[in-house]
Amino acid sequence: MTCEPQFRRARSDDLQAIVDMLADDPLGATREAAGPPYDPIYAQAFAAIEADPNQFLAVVERDCQIIGVMQLSFIPGLSRKGMWRGQIESVRIHSDARGSGLGRAMFEWAIDTCRQRGCELAQLTSDATRQEAHQFYEALGFQATHTGFKRAI
Amino acid sequence: MTCEPQFRRARSDDLQAIVDMLADDPLGATREAAGPPYDPIYAQAFAAIEADPNQFLAVVERDCQIIGVMQLSFIPGLSRKGMWRGQIESVRIHSDARGSGLGRAMFEWAIDTCRQRGCELAQLTSDATRQEAHQFYEALGFQATHTGFKRAI
Repeated sequence: MTCEPQFRRARSDDLQAIVDMLADDPLGATREAAGPPYDPIYAQAFAAIEADPNQFLAVVERDCQIIGVMQLSFIPGLSRKGMWRGQIESVRIHSDARGSGLGRAMFEWAIDTCRQRGCELAQLTSDATRQEAHQFYEALGFQATHTGFKRAI
Repeated sequence: MTCEPQFRRARSDDLQAIVDMLADDPLGATREAAGPPYDPIYAQAFAAIEADPNQFLAVVERDCQIIGVMQLSFIPGLSRKGMWRGQIESVRIHSDARGSGLGRAMFEWAIDTCRQRGCELAQLTSDATRQEAHQFYEALGFQATHTGFKRAI
């Protein structure tokens, strides 16, 4: 029997599964320190996320396996009449669960969760090389209105 | 005598000057509620920013006048080996102070401040129509590696 995927806040004992998913990705493979052993820097980062009530690191669990992860940041601001933004970051789906419609379910959950937190805009940036992801975001109603700039500091 | 611009955290009595700057912009003019009277939603948003220790709404003051504003968001995350990001948003320069090199000074201050908070990446998105701003960000060492997606929710 396969159960429906469950969405919940990540716990510290999910951390290894999350890091494995972050690393199992064409860009992530070059950026993450895959374990084991797991770099303690990930546990420090997890604690920082947990300590910030405007961060929500979510996992998707099915049959006792973590099959998805995403981070939501709820950002207050003055622009656009004091509108809160929900920012979506670090989305990954386990290789066992790709192509199953889970991505769409995760974004629908994310948008609902952002709305419940008072956000009126959802935003994300995606590396320009992820063309398939861009089509997926547009199909979900996102518009590619912005250019995303980054600088190592 | 003209004093050097001073950077500091915004106070509630700066709010009207900040909203005026947000509205004095081709895109902002269509999105903001210019005052007076000022919509109380801005004071609510200001309070939410103040309540979040990972938000830093900064103003630039010169000769007792507010001439610039920007918001920094310090975002913890697991990706890229648990790296903190410094996100820059809602940058505006007063019409009296444009073309004076203040923009560059503001970004240098922002990057220093993000670095002091432990961030290793600075990021921002800019509306695709702001072509002059894009050249400015590239001159500051930012790379246009991402596409920014937004969706009203």
